[in-house]
Parts: sequence; structure tokens; C-alpha cells
Amino acid sequence: MKSPASIVAQMLACDDFSTWLGIKILKVNLEEVVLTLEVQEIHTNGFKIAHGGICYALADTCLAFVSNSYGYKAVSVETSISHFTKVYAGDQLVATSKLVYKGNSSAVYMVEIENQNKTIVAHFKGTVRISKELW
Amino acid sequence: MKSPASIVAQMLACDDFSTWLGIKILKVNLEEVVLTLEVQEIHTNGFKIAHGGICYALADTCLAFVSNSYGYKAVSVETSISHFTKVYAGDQLVATSKLVYKGNSSAVYMVEIENQNKTIVAHFKGTVRISKELW
Amino acid sequence: MKSPASIVAQMLACDDFSTWLGIKILKVNLEEVVLTLEVQEIHTNGFKIAHGGICYALADTCLAFVSNSYGYKAVSVETSISHFTKVYAGDQLVATSKLVYKGNSSAVYMVEIENQNKTIVAHFKGTVRISKELW
Amino acid sequence: MKSPASIVAQMLACDDFSTWLGIKILKVNLEEVVLTLEVQEIHTNGFKIAHGGICYALADTCLAFVSNSYGYKAVSVETSISHFTKVYAGDQLVATSKLVYKGNSSAVYMVEIENQNKTIVAHFKGTVRISKELW
Repeated sequence: MKSPASIVAQMLACDDFSTWLGIKILKVNLEEVVLTLEVQEIHTNGFKIAHGGICYALADTCLAFVSNSYGYKAVSVETSISHFTKVYAGDQLVATSKLVYKGNSSAVYMVEIENQNKTIVAHFKGTVRISKELW
Repeated sequence: MKSPASIVAQMLACDDFSTWLGIKILKVNLEEVVLTLEVQEIHTNGFKIAHGGICYALADTCLAFVSNSYGYKAVSVETSISHFTKVYAGDQLVATSKLVYKGNSSAVYMVEIENQNKTIVAHFKGTVRISKELW
Repeated sequence: MKSPASIVAQMLACDDFSTWLGIKILKVNLEEVVLTLEVQEIHTNGFKIAHGGICYALADTCLAFVSNSYGYKAVSVETSISHFTKVYAGDQLVATSKLVYKGNSSAVYMVEIENQNKTIVAHFKGTVRISKELW
Repeated sequence: MKSPASIVAQMLACDDFSTWLGIKILKVNLEEVVLTLEVQEIHTNGFKIAHGGICYALADTCLAFVSNSYGYKAVSVETSISHFTKVYAGDQLVATSKLVYKGNSSAVYMVEIENQNKTIVAHFKGTVRISKELW
């Protein structure tokens, strides 16, 4: 079976949107993935803050990576995100996953996103369905 | 006070990320905004389906537009999305907002996203806080 | 296969908590269940309004009934609820389910709860997993 | 200003529904409330497991207690709960709050519920609005 790190590296290499966003892998442990993203002008909305889709996409990529890293393909079922702090172009975001629950066919993770000042900017929860299909 | 249509047009014109995604306005009614987006290759992830962040960003833009269209600035507090159907490059998505509840200082909307076959691909719920600041 | 109405009637008859709460069936259609509940003093919290658990329990029972009414056993995976309007002892609540999406192994419903003045008091969303086990 | 412990004790004393459920206070720290509940037959549904409303009500009471314990009245805006493990009559549940984010006018907490075997049975997230009204 492939290692978590090799699965995550492969997933990012094939993921056009995450690559376009500028998502980079900081750490892959068992049950934990840490990603980073530097916010660009093109990521902002009309309020000149990062569009909510940026933090969501970063968290959703983190969820996909951690939930697939065990070796079985997993897909997102339901996700929620709360945005707490404004995010600006130039901010360096760090997203860290945390396992809440893992069963045979489903799992729940949280992803916390902090900026370069260690201020929490968003909190994400995701439920995935785990298939029997190997990576 | 500005009209809903002029507020929404102004919001999209200033929104770099929504513009990059290719979001276009189909309709602005009282309490309803309808947007469209054609999915591109650059929007896909390693499974060659649209990244979850694409539907989320489309729905979140729809939420921002409809909740600001009354004339007072509003910001997202909590959002959730369920992804039902795979979305591919070339798909033409249509996002339609629906008011659930509107109070003095907060409101809740749903956004339903369909593809070109009228199949529902994602369902989004968003809670916003409404400020006293005029557009 | 049993009819939706007979499955729902059987579910309520065996459901000690829903019976204690005073939940009654108003309507069972295909893909729609409507329930009612009269709020009692014992349902209130320290603010002398209905405890959030009352609307949640009513909506969750509605979700269980509608998602099982097709004839296959279904269990709740993830649920969320927003409380909009204060509910008092004596209020007559009506909960109505609405199908959002139904696939082979999962489904999503909303449940809207109104009081006797047709004011929406809470909005619930629930995701269920559908088994192959018949009622 | 009243202490967190005295506010929480007062809230439970006036809370008819939480008292009926059998909720008891185990611990009140700054930003943390721990509650317990022994599941009764009357709390079960037609599957002879605890109704989803029991874990929700326990978590929602925990959210209300912790978010009010700072001395200002707070009300729930949006909550979600995932149910992982079946809960039976006789189970001893323990609910522990955890602060995710606290701002001036809103806060987000998680509540984790475990049974007597330290198995996580449910995970709850709640957003509250904080008023200027003192306890």
C-alpha cells in the first residue's frame, strides 16, 4: 500500500485547481495533513478580502488529502465552514486537519486555518464516505 | 438607495476571484439572485472533477450578492455545502438563491446549484450578519 | 412492501421519546412528512422559551420518518439547525420535510418548523445513509 | 460580575427541560463546561437507541452554559451535530465544550460527547451571538 505522503503528493500533483491556488504541503503525518497558501490579489472579492471560496478550497483540499491518505479513496459528503477573521492578499494561511471520528465507511475531520499571526481565520468541518477502492 | 441589480453588478465588477472563475449574472430579483459558471479544466482536482471549492465559491458569491442586494452590507457567518453529483469541465452550472429567513440583523439563504441537465449538483446553506452600513 | 403511512405510524408507536414530547402525525405523502407538537412548560429552558432540543427533536423525528418511509431503513449522518424565533409553552409547532436530494445510498432533506402564526421558527437540514434493510 | 460557576448553576436550576433530561454539571472552568446525562428508556426511539434529540439537547445545553458563563447573555444562531455511535438506555454520557473562536459579538464552540467507554458518540458545533446584557 502507498504511504500517506506519497498519496498526498500524487493528489496535489494532479490537482489543477489546488496548484493554481498555490497550495503547498507542509506536513503529512498519520491522520494529519498541514497545507499552506499565500493569498493573492486574484483571490480577493469586492471587499478586497479573500473570497470565502479560498479558505473553503484550502480546507476542502486538506480534507481530501487527509481522508485519502490511509490508502482508500474517500469523497466529501457534507462540509461546513465559519469565517472569523478577514484575510488579505499577502496573508500566509496554514490549514491543519484534526480527526474527529473514523469508522469503516465514513469519517469526520475538522480543519483549522490560521494566518501568519497564528490568528484563527476559519474553522471547517467535513464528513467523508470511505470507499473500498485502493490508491 | 441603490437598486438590487446595480449593487450586484457593482459587486461582481469589483470581485476579482468571481470574475476569474467566470461567474456571470443571470437574474437579480428581490430576494433572489441567479448566477452561472462554465466549469474549466483549471477548476478540476486530481479526480478530474470540479474541485469542491468551485461550487462553494459560486454559492458563496450568490449568498454575498443576494444578502447585500437589499442595500445594507452583509457578511457571511456560517455556511455549509453538500456535494451530490460529479461536476466536469464543460459543465454549465446555475446557482439560485432562496430566502429561508430574514430578521433585522441576520438572514439565512439556501443556494441550489444545478448543471445543464437540471440535475442538482450541490446544496448550500448560509447565515449572514446584516450591518447598518449602506451600499 | 409496507406503505409510507404504515411505516411512519409504526415508527411513532415505538418511539418513546417522540411520544413523550407529544409529536403527532399530520400528513404522510410520498417524500413528505408533516408532524405537529404542542410545546409544554417542561420543554422550556431557563429563558422560559423552548429548549433548542425541542425543535431539533421534532425535526430529527421528521427526518427519520420521511427518510425511512420509502421502505428501507435509514440513519442520520449529519444534521444542522438554525433557530430563528422564540418558541413558548403553548405554541403549536408544525414541521414539514422537503426532499433536497436522493441517491442510492444517501439523501438530504430540509425540515421547516413553523408556529401557529405561520412564522418560521427553525430550519433544519439532515443527511441520511440509506441501508438495504427493508422495513 | 457573577462567576461562571454561579451563572451555570443558576441556568440549570431554571432549565426545566435539561432538569427533566437529568443533565448534571461535572465541571465549570473558564471557557469549558462539562456535563453528564444518564440515558433513560424514555429517551429512546423506535430503534431502542437514544433519540438524536438527546445528544443534541445535551450539547445545546452545554453550548448555552459555556457561552453565557462569561457574564453576558448569549443565544444560539446555528448548530450542527454528527451522530457516530449508537447510544443505549443506561449509557452515561459526558459532554465537554471546547472554544473554537470568540469575538466581541459572536463565538463558536464544539461539544464532544463520549459514553462511559470513552467512545465518542457525537460531535456538535455551535455558533452564538453575544449580547451586551449582563447576567
